[in-house]
Amino acid sequence: MNNFTYSIPTVIHFGRGQLHHLSELKQSGSRVLLVYGGGSIKRSGLYDEAVKILTDSGLSITELSGVEPNPRIESVRRGAELCKANNIDMVLAIGGGSTIDCAKVVAAGACYDGDPWELVLDGSKIKAALPVYSVLTLSATGSEMDKYAVISDLSKNEKWGTGSDLVKPVMSVLDPTYTFTVSPKQTAAGTADMMSHTFENYFTNVRGAELQGNLCEAVLKTCIKYGPIALAEPENYDARANLMWAGSLAINGLLKGGAEVGWCVHPMEHELSAFYDITHGEGLAILTPVWMRFVLKNYPSKTAQLASYGRNVWNLSGEDSEVANKAVEKTAEFFFDTMKMPANLRAVGITEKVHFEEMAEKAAAGCEDSFVPLTKEDIISIFDAAF
Amino acid sequence: MNNFTYSIPTVIHFGRGQLHHLSELKQSGSRVLLVYGGGSIKRSGLYDEAVKILTDSGLSITELSGVEPNPRIESVRRGAELCKANNIDMVLAIGGGSTIDCAKVVAAGACYDGDPWELVLDGSKIKAALPVYSVLTLSATGSEMDKYAVISDLSKNEKWGTGSDLVKPVMSVLDPTYTFTVSPKQTAAGTADMMSHTFENYFTNVRGAELQGNLCEAVLKTCIKYGPIALAEPENYDARANLMWAGSLAINGLLKGGAEVGWCVHPMEHELSAFYDITHGEGLAILTPVWMRFVLKNYPSKTAQLASYGRNVWNLSGEDSEVANKAVEKTAEFFFDTMKMPANLRAVGITEKVHFEEMAEKAAAGCEDSFVPLTKEDIISIFDAAF
Repeated sequence: MNNFTYSIPTVIHFGRGQLHHLSELKQSGSRVLLVYGGGSIKRSGLYDEAVKILTDSGLSITELSGVEPNPRIESVRRGAELCKANNIDMVLAIGGGSTIDCAKVVAAGACYDGDPWELVLDGSKIKAALPVYSVLTLSATGSEMDKYAVISDLSKNEKWGTGSDLVKPVMSVLDPTYTFTVSPKQTAAGTADMMSHTFENYFTNVRGAELQGNLCEAVLKTCIKYGPIALAEPENYDARANLMWAGSLAINGLLKGGAEVGWCVHPMEHELSAFYDITHGEGLAILTPVWMRFVLKNYPSKTAQLASYGRNVWNLSGEDSEVANKAVEKTAEFFFDTMKMPANLRAVGITEKVHFEEMAEKAAAGCEDSFVPLTKEDIISIFDAAF
Repeated sequence: MNNFTYSIPTVIHFGRGQLHHLSELKQSGSRVLLVYGGGSIKRSGLYDEAVKILTDSGLSITELSGVEPNPRIESVRRGAELCKANNIDMVLAIGGGSTIDCAKVVAAGACYDGDPWELVLDGSKIKAALPVYSVLTLSATGSEMDKYAVISDLSKNEKWGTGSDLVKPVMSVLDPTYTFTVSPKQTAAGTADMMSHTFENYFTNVRGAELQGNLCEAVLKTCIKYGPIALAEPENYDARANLMWAGSLAINGLLKGGAEVGWCVHPMEHELSAFYDITHGEGLAILTPVWMRFVLKNYPSKTAQLASYGRNVWNLSGEDSEVANKAVEKTAEFFFDTMKMPANLRAVGITEKVHFEEMAEKAAAGCEDSFVPLTKEDIISIFDAAF
């Protein structure tokens, strides 16, 4: 097991009827920037309810609305300007991971003299940030409890993750009922996203991080059980609750600490989203089984770990090689049959291979110390197999 | 799943060579009360190393030494007096759970005008506390990352748990090498303690807290794998590391949040320790299989949950009733054969039943809303079966 520092300061209020905790924002001052997306929180009534609690608590509200899926640097710049112009004390995101990611870099940008894009390219430049709070409406990225934010500059086909302890949310409200109206497409994509975060931690080269591996299996089994239930019964509270909490635990540091390894499926998917603006979770689902097959074909020494995955998560039995291969096919079946997700790049509108080389070159820079190292050529072959 | 609040603010520095983080104590002031036990930290050199780091950081040290296993209220009173007399800014425990528990109530007692025993009887009376830090030398109680403390007044045969968010350690150093010298007896007792914490969370009446249950199984499997390795190879780093981290996660709130249930084996054991000063983990190991058999015999509706335990933790297969019964026997075998722990009350020196009625009456007060409710008579029958 590696040395690690565990620090998860975010207070989570989980369950039905926790929104009243927004009154606690007054501990951070009196002026809040309220960040949200396309307006679904207005249709659901959540916006009105939150505004009432904030106003009743004596907080004045400035708004940054219209944050995009795959949030754009333009929104971040606008938010940071609003903070500076209005002397904002704290940032509250109400939405999914995109909204929270945007709010985090806004909170850092508000305390930074340069262009916030510099903070996206280099998280270590974040030296201060306004306190961040969130109300989660989509179970997926885990941004409600972690240090990360992913921001895109589509004018440059760039999508990068940044991170800083300073933007970890102070407090997040996780009410599973807010996800009852999430579409089947987004429910599936969110489930794939949290499973991918877990896989990125689970397939590690660190020996002896057994507890972390067992915890990963616990999260994966939860997603595999409740993802399909949430699709079939969108208002099944326990399904939505288990997915919501699994999404937070998948990336808050619990599964990673002591088992650190470079991620690789995420860097590859970020290129797909940067060039084609596809849904992140769908890109991850498409790439994951292809990547697993690549590992099995080219790195026989990794077969045992894929076999453990098959035994402990899918209850398979048999010889290592057989179980490992079956586990990969189970994973593909789960995403593409059970969760009804698009199974290849063409199905999400990537109908030409013209950018594969450029995307692979960029992704390869992030895949050097991953579970198996991936070169530009390896990644092109993975994109090809996913086409 | 229940509503819950998750708040685990303790920063953990885990791994070899993390002691230098003690220099961070100066963030809390300049005068530290150093709390420790019987002097093993002096023999190991840890004391000298810690004192040097503290002194080099400009901290002045006052000492409270000789804290007992099953720490006594007399030590707590002495510590609180030292804090008041020396204007102490923070409390640093170096030791196992007993030392940390003592330090927590000392930290609260330092900010309390009355007798600290009142804070043991009623944790809600803790309205302020000095910051608590710890360096862990024994994997067992999880006190390094939780809000709880258990203190005894042997003059009254009383042993009670108290708790407050205010005494959660600010930072704890978890270096598995500090546990290389822990005796087989204490290694086994510590493993039983963390497993018991996990069982108390795992056997819940809350429906739909599936993720929490899966996480419990992850912790249990880790203990079952590495407990015996730590016994056979005391300096096996991965074994000590997995046990150390499992001990912290078992009781820091992760397994409990959303799945809350009253504990019952702990209240029963606390009476044994209060009356006979036995090793807590040994008492838990003795009572656990007996309690499981009581559940199976008297509450057929719980068979399925014991069977899940058998399947998911012990890899058993078959009908519910068969698997459930086998799982209990596997648990007993693990404690008494594999971990070589005393198997009944007589083996830990409780050779008469004269206090059973009084102990059962006190324990029953804490077992009303547990997995199965336990009356005084039920508890006497459990003590009898454990005799």
